[in-house]
Amino acid sequence: MTNNNPLDALGEFPLIARIVELLGDAAAADILVPSGDDAAAWLETTPGIAVATIDALTEGTHWRADTMSMADVGWRAVAANVSDLAAMGATPGTLLVAASLGPAITLADLDGFVEGLADSCRAHGVRVAGGDIVRGPATMFSIAAYGRVDLVGNATEDTPLLRRSSARVGDAVAVSGHPGASGAGLALIEAGRTSESEATPLLEAHRRPRARTALGHAAVEAGIRCAIDVSDGVLQDLDHVAEQSGVGIEIDCDALPLQPAARALLGDASALDLALGGGEDFELLLTGAEATLRSLSSSEVPVTVIGRVVAEHPGETVARDAQGTVYEAPQRGWDQLAGDGAR
Amino acid sequence: MTNNNPLDALGEFPLIARIVELLGDAAAADILVPSGDDAAAWLETTPGIAVATIDALTEGTHWRADTMSMADVGWRAVAANVSDLAAMGATPGTLLVAASLGPAITLADLDGFVEGLADSCRAHGVRVAGGDIVRGPATMFSIAAYGRVDLVGNATEDTPLLRRSSARVGDAVAVSGHPGASGAGLALIEAGRTSESEATPLLEAHRRPRARTALGHAAVEAGIRCAIDVSDGVLQDLDHVAEQSGVGIEIDCDALPLQPAARALLGDASALDLALGGGEDFELLLTGAEATLRSLSSSEVPVTVIGRVVAEHPGETVARDAQGTVYEAPQRGWDQLAGDGAR
Repeated sequence: MTNNNPLDALGEFPLIARIVELLGDAAAADILVPSGDDAAAWLETTPGIAVATIDALTEGTHWRADTMSMADVGWRAVAANVSDLAAMGATPGTLLVAASLGPAITLADLDGFVEGLADSCRAHGVRVAGGDIVRGPATMFSIAAYGRVDLVGNATEDTPLLRRSSARVGDAVAVSGHPGASGAGLALIEAGRTSESEATPLLEAHRRPRARTALGHAAVEAGIRCAIDVSDGVLQDLDHVAEQSGVGIEIDCDALPLQPAARALLGDASALDLALGGGEDFELLLTGAEATLRSLSSSEVPVTVIGRVVAEHPGETVARDAQGTVYEAPQRGWDQLAGDGAR
Repeated sequence: MTNNNPLDALGEFPLIARIVELLGDAAAADILVPSGDDAAAWLETTPGIAVATIDALTEGTHWRADTMSMADVGWRAVAANVSDLAAMGATPGTLLVAASLGPAITLADLDGFVEGLADSCRAHGVRVAGGDIVRGPATMFSIAAYGRVDLVGNATEDTPLLRRSSARVGDAVAVSGHPGASGAGLALIEAGRTSESEATPLLEAHRRPRARTALGHAAVEAGIRCAIDVSDGVLQDLDHVAEQSGVGIEIDCDALPLQPAARALLGDASALDLALGGGEDFELLLTGAEATLRSLSSSEVPVTVIGRVVAEHPGETVARDAQGTVYEAPQRGWDQLAGDGAR
């Protein structure tokens, strides 16, 4: 490892100080023990449910320098993590961030990552409480998010969480936002079509996705008990719900709220493929009473009923068009382990 | 990335199932939401202080295949994390584990890592609540640990935590166990001297270190309020205490509880260098009333007074021998960022 990289010259502790300063108010400064001790600590004075998740992001697998800036990577890392908490109905609170810095990363790259991370923290209402930074053979980030569901004043008998295992026969199935928008954004970037004016919302969905925290919270308050976020594609993610709930799921392709720009720029067939198989939208899939699901919809984050939970074909999701023809996926989701290293 | 690796053939979800099975009772199965949903969840019915930390471990930087088995890496990853919680006085509870699998890792490597991790979880009284596994350009692990300090029945006015900033002039300084033992173990491995019978406790200290959870807990109960764990070497870690507490620290080299085997096999000078500058012992450094510190000592985990907190040279740790000669370190700790990539 050469030492002409300013990162190496800086050293561990000055680098951490620089990161904390760049984070600004996205660093949790007022908790009981902020960054700088052996661990972070904060008070929890009321009973609750702790909800926690961890994600790993690696260069080449989760981002490519030609399709995302380091600021986008930082933004998305937070969104992906917070989305997992949103899909449980939890209120996200603190993040811990671990970074392995590979030989090629520059100080500007790291600054960009931290700035995107800080912006995303502000947009998602979370703060960084601590972290770890090391040198390694490749650049990789790992974020753990910690959130809570308050139990005080919660009058219901059951556990106020959104589970994958809580879908019941007769439930309606709904999705937030416009699934496939992130995948459409990536397709346009790969095709060099980023300057087309209609592309903007799709590029934004790919580079600056937003976790649906408020929706998850509203859903659990309204009595909904089943959700998953769209990280591997609508069909693959609904399969997890179907498997864990022991039910079948049917989707009406024509009901899917495709992003109009995706249809216009990529065509109906591609927009549908991306909606059903494209990953990393961070929208929520929910099941429950149809009227309750509809009541969660807003102009900012629409919630659209796209199907139903059935007793047939347990463990499987089947999508059909208006003629009843079963949808055959060109690919189902993104298998991150068996991939070609470019996703 | 080639596909003749059984890891790739297995796919993400079967691999996760395999890992959960290998973890056995080291996987948290009885919490509110175990592995398999968007996030893990557990009940917290009493008020408390949440304590959380994250660590990154990368191939080449934190372990070398020629000095550690993958099971040792798994063991150490847990010990390092739990040690950070022990150094706060917290009771560790759950871990989240993220793994990036590089092209060279085999299924046997991963199984070894998981087995060592599970053994270490059992030894440290913690359990894995969830994780993430991805393919990447290099193998890297990241563990987040979550623990708690109970506030019920805690009658003291102040916050029952061990902080780096709580050292006060007049405090005694103590260390647990035998600092330098891990570094001595590594030195013997590098010198090919692992078969010497006296080497056993040193190799054990390097490959199977134990975090001092019970000691951290006992210290906080006894009214001690300042600690740090030995991760970068006694001198460097005490410098953090000195800086954050705005005090000076003096160490008596002759009082250091060197491991007899380290003195016998490597000589007094090397044993001292490793005790003051060798990292990753995961012993605790504590400051407070001398009698209280001595009362924490047991035959299993000795606690030895090695110095004192002074008003002079704030922010600095000075070590002296019996003649008053100031110790000059050949190297002070391990700077993980500026390193040569082999530590």
